[in-house]
Amino acid sequence: MSKVLIFGHKNPDTDSICSAIAYAALKKELGVDAEPVRLGGLNGETEYALKQFGAELPRLIKKAAPEVEQVILVDHNERQQSVDDIDAVRILEVIDHHRIANFETSDPLYYRAEPVGCTATILNKMYKENGVAVPKNVAGLMLSAIISDSLLFKSPTCTEEDIKAAQELAEIAGVNAEEYGLAMLKAGADLSGETTETLISLDSKVFAMGNYQVEVAQVNAIDVLDILARKEEIEEALQRTIAEKELDLFLFVVTDILNSNSVAIVAGQEAAVVEKAYNTPISDRTIVLEGVVSRKKQIIPVLTDIFQEMSQ
Amino acid sequence: MSKVLIFGHKNPDTDSICSAIAYAALKKELGVDAEPVRLGGLNGETEYALKQFGAELPRLIKKAAPEVEQVILVDHNERQQSVDDIDAVRILEVIDHHRIANFETSDPLYYRAEPVGCTATILNKMYKENGVAVPKNVAGLMLSAIISDSLLFKSPTCTEEDIKAAQELAEIAGVNAEEYGLAMLKAGADLSGETTETLISLDSKVFAMGNYQVEVAQVNAIDVLDILARKEEIEEALQRTIAEKELDLFLFVVTDILNSNSVAIVAGQEAAVVEKAYNTPISDRTIVLEGVVSRKKQIIPVLTDIFQEMSQ
Repeated sequence: MSKVLIFGHKNPDTDSICSAIAYAALKKELGVDAEPVRLGGLNGETEYALKQFGAELPRLIKKAAPEVEQVILVDHNERQQSVDDIDAVRILEVIDHHRIANFETSDPLYYRAEPVGCTATILNKMYKENGVAVPKNVAGLMLSAIISDSLLFKSPTCTEEDIKAAQELAEIAGVNAEEYGLAMLKAGADLSGETTETLISLDSKVFAMGNYQVEVAQVNAIDVLDILARKEEIEEALQRTIAEKELDLFLFVVTDILNSNSVAIVAGQEAAVVEKAYNTPISDRTIVLEGVVSRKKQIIPVLTDIFQEMSQ
Repeated sequence: MSKVLIFGHKNPDTDSICSAIAYAALKKELGVDAEPVRLGGLNGETEYALKQFGAELPRLIKKAAPEVEQVILVDHNERQQSVDDIDAVRILEVIDHHRIANFETSDPLYYRAEPVGCTATILNKMYKENGVAVPKNVAGLMLSAIISDSLLFKSPTCTEEDIKAAQELAEIAGVNAEEYGLAMLKAGADLSGETTETLISLDSKVFAMGNYQVEVAQVNAIDVLDILARKEEIEEALQRTIAEKELDLFLFVVTDILNSNSVAIVAGQEAAVVEKAYNTPISDRTIVLEGVVSRKKQIIPVLTDIFQEMSQ
C-alpha cells in the first residue's frame, strides 16, 4: 500500500497529536507506510507531553493531496475540522470518539467510533486486538491524551474504559497518572504568554449546526480571572473571526480545571441561543456555565438541538 | 437501559434481516433489551434462509419513535434508507460495511464500519470479542447473509475475512456453504411470481449523490432474459417511481449470478451519466455492465464521482 498520512483535527489538542503518533506507530508495526502529521501549532500542554516522553514533533501540513492519495483521520470526522483538501484524498479509516456530521465518502471504509472520552482509549484496544505491545514512550503519549480529554478523569465524557486504559498506560509508561497529569494540565493552563489571537484559536472548532455555523473555542485555566481580564481584546478578536468566517455564533469557553466550572465570552448575532441553552442570562457578553467542562457533551449537543430546530 | 430496536435498511436483503437478528441475539446475551425488526417485506432468498434455520420473522415497523427512544442500525447508515422517523430517535450504534453519507448525530455513538463484504462478518468478530458463542441457528443466518452479499464469494466486495467467517459459521451451522449457498441464491433468483412493482423495489436503495437523487435496484437472476422480457412494464414502473420520488436517475440492475455479469434498465433525465460511467452506449434503454455484480463497489462510487463533479 502506498504512503498514508495520519492526522487529527485543526487546532490540534493533545489527543489529536498523540493519537496520530500512536496510531502511526501501530500501523507501521503492521507493515503500513504511515506518517503522523499535524494541521496546526501545538499548545503548551501537548508540548509538555511530547517533551516528557521524548517524542518527535509531527510535521505540519497544509494540504494532503500533493503528497499522498490516502489518509487516516483520528479524533475528528467533520470536514471543516480536517485538512483543507480533504475532498481530494481518499479517507481510508477514521478512529474517533465524537459525533458524526458533515462527513461523506464514496467508498466503504474502516470507521471506528466509540462513545468514550478519548481516541487513545480506542487505540489502546486496537493495539491489543492486533497483538502489538504499546511502546513505553507511546504509552506515555496515549496517557497524556486521556488525561487531557478527561481533565484528569473529571470530565463527564470520561468513562470506565478511559480510566482503565489510563491505568494500563501509566504502568507501561512508568509514571504516576495523577501527579504527571496535574503537571501536564498546569503546563497547558499557563496562557499568560499567549497572544489573544492564539488564545481563541488554540483549541477551537467550527461546527455546522442546521443552517448555522458555530465556532466553539475552549481553554483550560487555573486562574480564570487572569483570562477574563483580557475580555475586551478577546471580544474584538472573536468579532474579527466571525466576520472573516461568516459565523453565526462564537463561544469562547474558559474552563477552571481545578473547580470544574466554565465561563464563556459570547459573540455573534445568535448569542441569545446560548442564554436559551443554559437558561442563564448573558451579562456583559459573559455567561457562567455552572458545572460545564466538556464541549463535546455539555455544549455541542445542546446548541445543535436548538439550531436544528431553528433551521426547520 | 430501555428497549432498543435493531434494524437494517428499507427493502431489506438477507444481510439486513439476518444481521439484525444476529446482533439482537448478541445484545440480549449481553443484557440489553434488544428486538430485531424490519423495514419492509422479505425477498424469496431471505425467506428461504429464515425457514432453513428455523428463525422467527422479525416484526415489520413503519416508525420507531412511538415505541422506543433508541435504535441500532445494521447494514446501512444513510438516512433515506432508514426508518422514516429516524430523526426522532437516538442512534446508539451503527454496524455497517457501506460508505458513510447523509448521516449525522448530535451525540457521540458507537460506529463500526469495516470495508468487508457483509455486516455479518463484522458481527462474527464482535461475538468473539465479547466471548459469546454464536448459536447454531444464528450462525446459519449469518452464513446466509455473507453468501447473499458476496454472491457465493464471487463478488469483488468479498474479502478474505468474509470467506473465513463463512467457513467458521458453516461449521457451527452444520451445512456445506457451497451447496446451501447455491440453493439459497436460486430460491432468491426465482422472480417469475413477482409483480413488476415488487421486482423494482425488492432490493432498491436511494442515494444522495451531490445534488442528485439516484435510485439503484438490483435483482439476482439465473435467467436474465426472463426478466428483460418484461422490460416495457418495468420501464413504466421506473418512470412512476421517478415521478413520485423526484429522482434524477433510476437504474434497475439484473445480475446474472451464474456468469457474474449484469444488464441494467436505465430511466430518468440523467441517464447519460450511466453511459459516461461505463463508457458503454445505452441501447433501447438497456446497458450491458460487463463484469459488474456489486452495486456497492462497482456502481455507487462511479456514479457518485460523476454526480459530485456535476454538483460543483
